[in-house]
Amino acid sequence: MLAFRLDPTQERLVRDLPIGVFDSGVGGLTVLRALREALPAEPLTYLGDTARLPYGTKGPETVRRYAIQAAHCLVDRGVKMLVVACNTASSLALDALEREFAPVPVVGVVRPGARAAAAASASGRIGVLATESTARGGAYEREIRAVRANANVVSKGCSVFVALAEEGWSHGPIAEAVAREYVEPLMKAHAPDCLLLGCTHFPVLADAIAIVAGPDVRIVDSAATTADVVREEITRRGLAAAPLAPGAMSPAPRLLATDSPDRFERVASRFLPPSEAPHDIELVDLA
Amino acid sequence: MLAFRLDPTQERLVRDLPIGVFDSGVGGLTVLRALREALPAEPLTYLGDTARLPYGTKGPETVRRYAIQAAHCLVDRGVKMLVVACNTASSLALDALEREFAPVPVVGVVRPGARAAAAASASGRIGVLATESTARGGAYEREIRAVRANANVVSKGCSVFVALAEEGWSHGPIAEAVAREYVEPLMKAHAPDCLLLGCTHFPVLADAIAIVAGPDVRIVDSAATTADVVREEITRRGLAAAPLAPGAMSPAPRLLATDSPDRFERVASRFLPPSEAPHDIELVDLA
Repeated sequence: MLAFRLDPTQERLVRDLPIGVFDSGVGGLTVLRALREALPAEPLTYLGDTARLPYGTKGPETVRRYAIQAAHCLVDRGVKMLVVACNTASSLALDALEREFAPVPVVGVVRPGARAAAAASASGRIGVLATESTARGGAYEREIRAVRANANVVSKGCSVFVALAEEGWSHGPIAEAVAREYVEPLMKAHAPDCLLLGCTHFPVLADAIAIVAGPDVRIVDSAATTADVVREEITRRGLAAAPLAPGAMSPAPRLLATDSPDRFERVASRFLPPSEAPHDIELVDLA
Repeated sequence: MLAFRLDPTQERLVRDLPIGVFDSGVGGLTVLRALREALPAEPLTYLGDTARLPYGTKGPETVRRYAIQAAHCLVDRGVKMLVVACNTASSLALDALEREFAPVPVVGVVRPGARAAAAASASGRIGVLATESTARGGAYEREIRAVRANANVVSKGCSVFVALAEEGWSHGPIAEAVAREYVEPLMKAHAPDCLLLGCTHFPVLADAIAIVAGPDVRIVDSAATTADVVREEITRRGLAAAPLAPGAMSPAPRLLATDSPDRFERVASRFLPPSEAPHDIELVDLA
């Protein structure tokens, strides 16, 4: 059932629209990748607001304004759902986006990740690995406690992970040494049985983090859990695209960026499978 | 001799003004630190445009506009010289700043570093370690070749160094492993006898870089060489402050930032000696 009333032809047209995904940069491509895996038939449009990254160091009003401009760019091109693949915008701008673009459904990355971690932890001791600004903002802690009031949550800023992910150094001795530096003290002091990757850059480092955390710790990835929620919402609202014909390829995502398509293409390739190397990045102006 | 005509009282007032230093963030604090060492009697004002960092990914017109706004903020508070402690603004906005603020002298970081490297290299084979955008822009190569036409210059983007410097991980096994990853291939392929640290963040990593490069390679630091040029210019123009009285302390630098003084203070402490831990950061609005 669609939340807004459409005739059957309009309904079919809406179902054929892409899901719009945006982030301040390339990190949200881990969410795009998870969406491709969870929903292979869905067309996807991704916008990286690379000219104005990072959002994490900016004030709440600025982040809301930027998020609305980014979402407008996607909605103007036609999307049936908005996915906010950015932690900062998810914690600061979700309500504003829902008001501005109703009835288009809006899904952020913070709540799905937080709920999955709350469900995955046996002991209720959860570590959140995030950027410094997300860790300090406490959005994941609030969302986890909203569904599991007695959870014991510790957030840890892991800024160097972002640089490693963008440089393509997601595996190997440097990635493991950096993971050890961040994760070992957290394990010793807090003994979590679940680590939530609360930054869209971090899923590419999941293996290095798991090596340090050990086999008894569940790694919950907000990209994969967001894709699960998008699939549920799309099904519940009757917005799913027609299934792929047997043997048909997934439609290639459309990629937009606000600055330097060259750098976007180079860095984005580190977040996507080799078979889906990005190309034809379209430069857009949001201001 | 002052470039502009002033009476003796005005001359003394100008000499008492601080030198104004700006960068897009905290990296330029290595230049501030070098200026303190080279010119202990000079009052200094530093502005970090932290709300709009990084400049390196933005277009030339935007960088020029931001640099002029940052410089205005300093000139409005009274400075006798402008030091552009930012590679991107030094390579894109120096002429515009000189035009806008004449007769205030303007010194950037690119030319002093480039000239010092050209002079320090025996073989003429020079490696430039910089951010990805500085390395791709080629400003250091152009400035080195302007004074040593047959120099053989290779620039290497080393983005992870920025994250290590800001995290305070400038020494130890991770810093050395990252330096090895960047510097060893450059040494093998190009055999430079001089490495120019072409990013204001990198002087804090000089020890780790030197360990990897080996004792026969000269490390030239654009922060220290910029401070040398500022000292020469200040002396040549008759702008030097009165020497410190015996036993007197250097005046504490005045620090301005455009966003989040808390984060500025925390990260800045990693670029300054412990005895000069930053405090009383003033939040300013440039727009």
